[in-house]
Amino acid sequence: MARILLITGGARSGKSTFAEDRAAAYAPPWAYLATAEARDTEMTARIRLHQTRRGPDWHTHEDGTALVETLRRTEDGFGVRLVDCLTLWLSRLMEEDADIAAETGVLCDYLRGTKTPVILVGNEVGLGIVPANALARAFRDEAGRLNQAVAAVADEVVFMVAGLPMTVKPA
Amino acid sequence: MARILLITGGARSGKSTFAEDRAAAYAPPWAYLATAEARDTEMTARIRLHQTRRGPDWHTHEDGTALVETLRRTEDGFGVRLVDCLTLWLSRLMEEDADIAAETGVLCDYLRGTKTPVILVGNEVGLGIVPANALARAFRDEAGRLNQAVAAVADEVVFMVAGLPMTVKPA
Amino acid sequence: MARILLITGGARSGKSTFAEDRAAAYAPPWAYLATAEARDTEMTARIRLHQTRRGPDWHTHEDGTALVETLRRTEDGFGVRLVDCLTLWLSRLMEEDADIAAETGVLCDYLRGTKTPVILVGNEVGLGIVPANALARAFRDEAGRLNQAVAAVADEVVFMVAGLPMTVKPA
Repeated sequence: MARILLITGGARSGKSTFAEDRAAAYAPPWAYLATAEARDTEMTARIRLHQTRRGPDWHTHEDGTALVETLRRTEDGFGVRLVDCLTLWLSRLMEEDADIAAETGVLCDYLRGTKTPVILVGNEVGLGIVPANALARAFRDEAGRLNQAVAAVADEVVFMVAGLPMTVKPA
Repeated sequence: MARILLITGGARSGKSTFAEDRAAAYAPPWAYLATAEARDTEMTARIRLHQTRRGPDWHTHEDGTALVETLRRTEDGFGVRLVDCLTLWLSRLMEEDADIAAETGVLCDYLRGTKTPVILVGNEVGLGIVPANALARAFRDEAGRLNQAVAAVADEVVFMVAGLPMTVKPA
Repeated sequence: MARILLITGGARSGKSTFAEDRAAAYAPPWAYLATAEARDTEMTARIRLHQTRRGPDWHTHEDGTALVETLRRTEDGFGVRLVDCLTLWLSRLMEEDADIAAETGVLCDYLRGTKTPVILVGNEVGLGIVPANALARAFRDEAGRLNQAVAAVADEVVFMVAGLPMTVKPA
């Protein structure tokens, strides 16, 4: 079983479901590091629904952009940590005008050194037409760089297509 | 030879050509289930051109969203049926405000049970930046779900890149 | 080592870095055929920066859309030629209102016959939602056709995901 697994792919390609399936191979309990923000009642309801579906072996952590702090806090007591997802984390970092390269560096340093497994979900957003919007172009550049950096420290990388994993970096 | 084959990929990645090549391995005649709608003279001309190119061993069926009915009607007398493509079918179902989950269920039940092979062409539309348009976002979510559902019942799934098939689910 | 290698993938998927790494396996000097146009000071600075980073074993050629002429001129004296990238070349051809099918044919004929290796970088732009803009739709169709044509004459094709190569056509 991989210590660091990156699951990437397009929207609705089955990344989260596959991530949860892979997590189930580790000893419970499992930590779920949610990077989505509950901005309205609909979003809050959706997040709660997902939480209920995952069941009691999952412990949800919602700490906004403080991802590495949460990873440090969950080193002990969990069989695996699932980060869902890197792209929303990036999106919030950009909103906060954070230093993306520095944050990526801190995350990758942490991943290199941790002994407790981590599964990270990413998103491929750079396979369409160049966006007309400058912010969207910047975002897809940053998302591509982040995925490359995490893939470089991962022990296993898969690319999801239609709910099925294609091996990018074998475990 | 796969009983149910899903061919997915981006625009102009060679999906239809590969689908026709794979169909040629089955005994003729072959049924072509077109989901594109001839909305104008240009589109009509383009559809006729493709039909002529495919040749007399292909029998074209154009029944709009009545895909499963056409699949049932072509159970006998054809070596294989080619559905080109799932994404246009979905697009028309959404226009008709149909129950997509229910329609997907009926299609997948049919595919699980049929004895006459079916090749289905899908489209990957979720690998770009999140669309600003709400309908486009809903469409890419539905397309992703549809591809996952069909891939789950398929015996073989390929992802086309630059005219070449990459194996997602081996036959 | 492949005579003709096509490296395709999304934005910031590590195509250029991988291309330069693969080029390093051939005897120097290496020819870098840049298709990007220095339209402003920022772009010029960026191009110079890349040039400096690549180092003295790389000889940069910037000849706009005259790609095949430059390939012919670099047949002798170079271990390998790197074309970075096909999509910018296409973009400039479309601006010049060139005959894309004819230009593609000339390039592919050249690639079929040359003895000096060529590495070509392409872009996958057809995996997002259908663009609302007609020119964008035409561009993604042409980019898909160009990638298919080059992939057909290539000895090896890879698809980059998160900085890692997936084999599309094995060498």
